[in-house]
Amino acid sequence: MSLQKIYELIDSKKQSYIERLHKAVSIPSVSADASLRPKVVEMADFIVSEFEKLGAKMEKRDIGSHVMNGVEVPLPPIVLGQYGNDPAKKTVLIYNHYDVQPAKKSDGWDSEPFELVVDEKDRMLGRGVTDDKGPLMGWIANLEAYKEAGVDFPVNLLMCFEGMEEYGSEGLDDLIVAEANRYFKKADCVCISDTYWLGTRKPVLTYGLRGVSYFNVTVEGPSADLHSGVFGGTVHEPMTDLIAVMASLVKPDGTILVPGIVDEVAPLTKDEDKLYDNIDYSMDDLKQAVGGEINVYDSPKDTLQHRWRYPTLSLHGIQGAFSESGAKTVIPAKVTGKFSIRTVPNMTAEHINKCVKEHVEKVFASLNSKNRVSVECLHSGSWWISSPFHWHYTIGAKAVKTVYGVEPDLVREGGSIPITLTFETALNKNVLLLSMGRGDDGAHSINEKLDVENYVNGIKLFATYVDELSKSELK
Amino acid sequence: MSLQKIYELIDSKKQSYIERLHKAVSIPSVSADASLRPKVVEMADFIVSEFEKLGAKMEKRDIGSHVMNGVEVPLPPIVLGQYGNDPAKKTVLIYNHYDVQPAKKSDGWDSEPFELVVDEKDRMLGRGVTDDKGPLMGWIANLEAYKEAGVDFPVNLLMCFEGMEEYGSEGLDDLIVAEANRYFKKADCVCISDTYWLGTRKPVLTYGLRGVSYFNVTVEGPSADLHSGVFGGTVHEPMTDLIAVMASLVKPDGTILVPGIVDEVAPLTKDEDKLYDNIDYSMDDLKQAVGGEINVYDSPKDTLQHRWRYPTLSLHGIQGAFSESGAKTVIPAKVTGKFSIRTVPNMTAEHINKCVKEHVEKVFASLNSKNRVSVECLHSGSWWISSPFHWHYTIGAKAVKTVYGVEPDLVREGGSIPITLTFETALNKNVLLLSMGRGDDGAHSINEKLDVENYVNGIKLFATYVDELSKSELK
Repeated sequence: MSLQKIYELIDSKKQSYIERLHKAVSIPSVSADASLRPKVVEMADFIVSEFEKLGAKMEKRDIGSHVMNGVEVPLPPIVLGQYGNDPAKKTVLIYNHYDVQPAKKSDGWDSEPFELVVDEKDRMLGRGVTDDKGPLMGWIANLEAYKEAGVDFPVNLLMCFEGMEEYGSEGLDDLIVAEANRYFKKADCVCISDTYWLGTRKPVLTYGLRGVSYFNVTVEGPSADLHSGVFGGTVHEPMTDLIAVMASLVKPDGTILVPGIVDEVAPLTKDEDKLYDNIDYSMDDLKQAVGGEINVYDSPKDTLQHRWRYPTLSLHGIQGAFSESGAKTVIPAKVTGKFSIRTVPNMTAEHINKCVKEHVEKVFASLNSKNRVSVECLHSGSWWISSPFHWHYTIGAKAVKTVYGVEPDLVREGGSIPITLTFETALNKNVLLLSMGRGDDGAHSINEKLDVENYVNGIKLFATYVDELSKSELK
Repeated sequence: MSLQKIYELIDSKKQSYIERLHKAVSIPSVSADASLRPKVVEMADFIVSEFEKLGAKMEKRDIGSHVMNGVEVPLPPIVLGQYGNDPAKKTVLIYNHYDVQPAKKSDGWDSEPFELVVDEKDRMLGRGVTDDKGPLMGWIANLEAYKEAGVDFPVNLLMCFEGMEEYGSEGLDDLIVAEANRYFKKADCVCISDTYWLGTRKPVLTYGLRGVSYFNVTVEGPSADLHSGVFGGTVHEPMTDLIAVMASLVKPDGTILVPGIVDEVAPLTKDEDKLYDNIDYSMDDLKQAVGGEINVYDSPKDTLQHRWRYPTLSLHGIQGAFSESGAKTVIPAKVTGKFSIRTVPNMTAEHINKCVKEHVEKVFASLNSKNRVSVECLHSGSWWISSPFHWHYTIGAKAVKTVYGVEPDLVREGGSIPITLTFETALNKNVLLLSMGRGDDGAHSINEKLDVENYVNGIKLFATYVDELSKSELK
């Protein structure tokens, strides 16, 4: 009965929720742009103020500074919060981030990225609407709805909001570890809303993420860039060597050529294979998402398994080579090839690093070049996997069923959210990834959007999730 | 006797020649920077004014405008000039360019690039000192020296100076062809000073240049950049395809892998081979020039033959891929690989284009990718070769011997000056490449320099060259 009342209230307040998100979007909290750092801090203040109005106890943790392009810049604070402290209630820790990806209208946006507009399809357009300001405003709306409906909030809430997610989550790992048995001590579980539906039709629960190991391979020889007319073909050219090395990493059909990499990949069991049988995903969904018929596999199952539970290797680019339009006849002196490997259970960063280093050095040696090669792992974040049958997921599924009338698809993501594993490991509690937006929202892309429908239903989902959590016997 | 008088006068006026070059360098006539186009025009005016002071008839030819980065920009004029019109004298057409490469102190210059300084080694540092303002000021000094010495200038001079050499020589080909039988009609030969000694010790005459064909290979598939976590390995990635194609073009030892490319290369004759025997060039010269021991060949002869008379293929870079520092996990939607082939007698652009296109398409087909590939030849300029035994070269050699006391090395260049061939073909006259600067001058590089000694001796060389030309019986 009380949930129904809250749903009605949420429906009636839709416009005010859009206005709050409008305000959040209008603060360009771009963490990758040092000149906008004050705006990231302004966004932290906005969140603190909104939660405090509802009676939450908030604090901003100063986590020092970092160096960007040679300049020391203060890090935005990590916002911690507590709402309710009743020993009789369960306690959930929620995580969101309040920074966003860069955006300029000239990138190809149809509207000003930092001014939320609602289009004729009832979609809110603006940087951060779905990643991750929509879900964050959704939690504020959830608290507000209970309060305005006169219904006691059914759980205690702990909060952790960061402003550096789009730029490497600097400082967050340390804070989580330090606060695991202090600020976060009473958490019974963790809920992260920073993922999306697989497609556009069906809600999901996400129980797995791939990890990522990012590599630089650098080949250098001459002391400065050379003129290809004068020296071309008479010296060992770093680009020629690097291209040969990069070509030795992966086949055009996606097969990873680095020996040993797949040795640690967990075999696919029949039970696991079955999980892929009824997922609402079609080859047409892939085609729509990528804008072309460029699929490597012919079935949704093969496609999703290679997205979620097999490793892949992508070549991203080359630093130091000519990269503009036109026709520069340069022999670059030092070039760095960039590639990453998406990792899955039970791969380990150590083994991956070893395999990559050995392979690159072996291939380079076979070139008989007089240049020098070096391999560097820029960063590695581990894969994460939970059980979709854990009680926390059962609760999540119930909440989805209540709001949407369907069982959610149990999915994994091909991308990586390293902080998920940190929460799980440091707190030793289950983490649920509860999505608000759809698979076509275009986080990180131009014309990022969040359907008003998903925003409103997402708020209802959060309201239902805490209600289900309070009624749960399991721990 | 009169030459000796001129030499003495040149020595005595050294400081004023440096000052004139200082003034020329201070005008940042960077043709590649649209915002500096007025400075290129200012440089044209400066040249016109200097030659007019000496009594030359000068004119500025308006050759219209061109489009740079989407903006229409007026082209700098081509400066034509005439000095003397005596039917009893021979007539030489000289060509130089008055524009320069871009330069910023922050690129790593030790001094302001547009302020000439003379260092403790008696080298003039500044953008354009050797390429090509030094030689151009050298011709002004040559005329001035004859005049001040009271010696009649021994030949008629025709002049053609362009302001777009560093940006594709737009409009010059057309003008040369149009004026071949008009303004340039009386030319008996052409002298271009826009090359350098091979090394640092010995003057040269340059009798050959390689051509260049520049290619873009584009692979595209998705309609926009994709996230490698979400789509990596499940779609055909343009970068993976492109890297495979680029790796199929050239071996790390410089061997070109495109079938058919070398079919048209003229066989090395014994006589030609002998020309390489006594050239003053060592493996240490190469090492010094490139800043490392990265030579492909072990002998100076093999090195020079691959620089001058064999084709080479260099990979320059990739447009559209990630090219910065850091770790962006992007699958670029459209990537363009850039490479060029340096061409030699008797290769033809048509055959090269055909071979490259066929090879790229065949390799791409073998990848079984669903992406699309396209090949484009951005530009092709032909190789050029003259006979080092032509009377014009004999005159040049005599002039060198008189000034430097040594026979010049007969060399070719690995680089390309397409306009050389245009002059030769349109006018049907011999072209002599007469160098002023040394091989380590660093044209196009930071800290571009011209030794004061080369500047002064270069002026004497020009003075001697016109004297020898006037005494020549041959035509």
